Amino acid sequence: MNIGILGAGQLGQMLALAGYPLGNRFTFLDTTGGHSAAIGEIISDPQNRRLGDFLERVDVVTYEFEHLPVALIREIEAHRPVYPSSRAIAVCQNRVEEKALFDRLSIPTPEYRVVESAAALEEAARALGCPAVAKSTTEGYDGKGQAVLKTPDDAPRAWDEIGHSQLIVEAFVDFVREVSIIAVRGRDGEVRFYPMAENRHADGILRYSVAPLPDLDDSVQTTADGYIRALLDELDYVGVLALELFQTRDGRLLANEMAPRVHNSGHWTMDGAVTSQFENHLRAVQGLPLGDTRARFPTCMANVIGREPDSGEVLRQADVHLHRYGKAERPGRKLGHVNLVAQDHAELARRLDALASLLPDAPAPRFSFVT
Amino acid sequence: MNIGILGAGQLGQMLALAGYPLGNRFTFLDTTGGHSAAIGEIISDPQNRRLGDFLERVDVVTYEFEHLPVALIREIEAHRPVYPSSRAIAVCQNRVEEKALFDRLSIPTPEYRVVESAAALEEAARALGCPAVAKSTTEGYDGKGQAVLKTPDDAPRAWDEIGHSQLIVEAFVDFVREVSIIAVRGRDGEVRFYPMAENRHADGILRYSVAPLPDLDDSVQTTADGYIRALLDELDYVGVLALELFQTRDGRLLANEMAPRVHNSGHWTMDGAVTSQFENHLRAVQGLPLGDTRARFPTCMANVIGREPDSGEVLRQADVHLHRYGKAERPGRKLGHVNLVAQDHAELARRLDALASLLPDAPAPRFSFVT
Repeated sequence: MNIGILGAGQLGQMLALAGYPLGNRFTFLDTTGGHSAAIGEIISDPQNRRLGDFLERVDVVTYEFEHLPVALIREIEAHRPVYPSSRAIAVCQNRVEEKALFDRLSIPTPEYRVVESAAALEEAARALGCPAVAKSTTEGYDGKGQAVLKTPDDAPRAWDEIGHSQLIVEAFVDFVREVSIIAVRGRDGEVRFYPMAENRHADGILRYSVAPLPDLDDSVQTTADGYIRALLDELDYVGVLALELFQTRDGRLLANEMAPRVHNSGHWTMDGAVTSQFENHLRAVQGLPLGDTRARFPTCMANVIGREPDSGEVLRQADVHLHRYGKAERPGRKLGHVNLVAQDHAELARRLDALASLLPDAPAPRFSFVT
Repeated sequence: MNIGILGAGQLGQMLALAGYPLGNRFTFLDTTGGHSAAIGEIISDPQNRRLGDFLERVDVVTYEFEHLPVALIREIEAHRPVYPSSRAIAVCQNRVEEKALFDRLSIPTPEYRVVESAAALEEAARALGCPAVAKSTTEGYDGKGQAVLKTPDDAPRAWDEIGHSQLIVEAFVDFVREVSIIAVRGRDGEVRFYPMAENRHADGILRYSVAPLPDLDDSVQTTADGYIRALLDELDYVGVLALELFQTRDGRLLANEMAPRVHNSGHWTMDGAVTSQFENHLRAVQGLPLGDTRARFPTCMANVIGREPDSGEVLRQADVHLHRYGKAERPGRKLGHVNLVAQDHAELARRLDALASLLPDAPAPRFSFVT
């Protein structure tokens, strides 16, 4: 089966690497002109003139990037099956619709307001209490389009800084940790859940994800499974969905945002789970049975950001698995990731310290389960 | 680093799949015109006119197929590093030189004679005792270029059938099982050994490999490690080397043949070992530290020969990992393989029976450790 992928970055490349062994071939439609994927045919189409060429090569279409025009997805849907659907992408690319869906499905979120002026932003910050976080309702990712208000007086500055006509303002959550749940739903409605990961960000960019978590109560996983299943079923979703959450001091989960695709916080599955998120996404979109989502070993994913480490030094570490994306160095850019696999979490924490010291500008890894 | 691969079949493709995450890019030189690899640039060169194009694209050269003209390898060596070297390939593509090397390094082999006529073949069969196996000294693989002599009188028929001017005749070995040892040697001389696999053939083609083996005495692994280390060091070898052996009833090992490349009996490492043979070969040829060769779990590799199974039915099995090669169906052709991973050997044997029933024309799996 020839699979079309909208976008041609590292997620597309990792999908292709997982798909060749399944017998798939890949065609990428790159509407941005900034592709880095090197496997499969890339149709570079910044002028939107080559959709026909793309469609005639592919049997089914998926994407690695959700900030695509919904009209484009709808046009493709008229000719080829697209998974996840245009409805899923429409919800995920607008924080107002996303929050409304969370509300409708009784998935708790931080308290929030939608505002459309600097004055309204100031009023919302006063009502919610500060610190508060303002986010553009569209086009935000990796911490872009966001600002923290320490006091309501920061509103004019934040409004100008973000520069969007509509923002969501959220009450600051005093969370213990950021976590995520990744699940996959097949064409037949079957759902499988990966063990939750704990995620550590720096400067708004994911740095580390660890899964499974030794100190996660089963009931928390079950709660998260229930939330993501509600989303998957409501959207009649096919493929991998990621849901980022805050875990509060009293153990509750508050949904932050979701991504309708394979997700950075699921890269640990490439070496730590029976079936990777990439393979499971591909199995789902082509109607194949889903693979086992069980974790084999405690695994930590460490992102390589901005500058490359010495590959030799990294590969000299025990049970590390390097995943480079073939991109040029640039501050803040995701260039690759390293998966570290260990027999237990104590060993994982110890070896992670050694690994982190080899990654340029990597913050010290700190996880809630390390005492 | 851009890696050049001579040959463009499934082994080259699996090398590329392992190499993209290391940051490598691949260029294949296909001198046969029968490529199936779909990843990376393929230079189709049946007329031997495009070697310059190939060389200017690559930093280092390796191969997935040893039946290449040694003169070609030597020519490439004048311009780029080639691993394993032309010396290794020269020895491996000639059974007479290979046996002589085994003899020189005191690696036991079945008793053999070199013959250059039907009459000499008959005489050798009489001296060695029948059944005996005659093999062309060059160009044999997957059981091609071989014949079994049940009596010395079969000599004229066998001679005509094989149709080579020089044969090796070997005494039939009353072996308990066929096994193989795969090892990798780095540019710095470091050597790592994979756990030995038991291999089951049908019609001269490998059908199943299992590793590690529950009933293999440590001393047998140590003996095999010693044999392959002697070969690696003697040839100043860089990369993965495979050595096929017979294990006799009294536990001795007799070397059958070696292959200077990643090997079908090492495909289990893709899902069953910490580092796959493909990644380790690439680490070796580019001077990176070698990865851990430890097995994580009992794993069985089952080849898909001639006809494709129903992918959905295969993927519905627990902990199976499908590796399709993207080749058209043809009797006797290797189309892919399936790795089956289990917690223990009893479970492996049980689930292997279920898997085998889904693979067209697969013989019933029988292993010496299953009682």
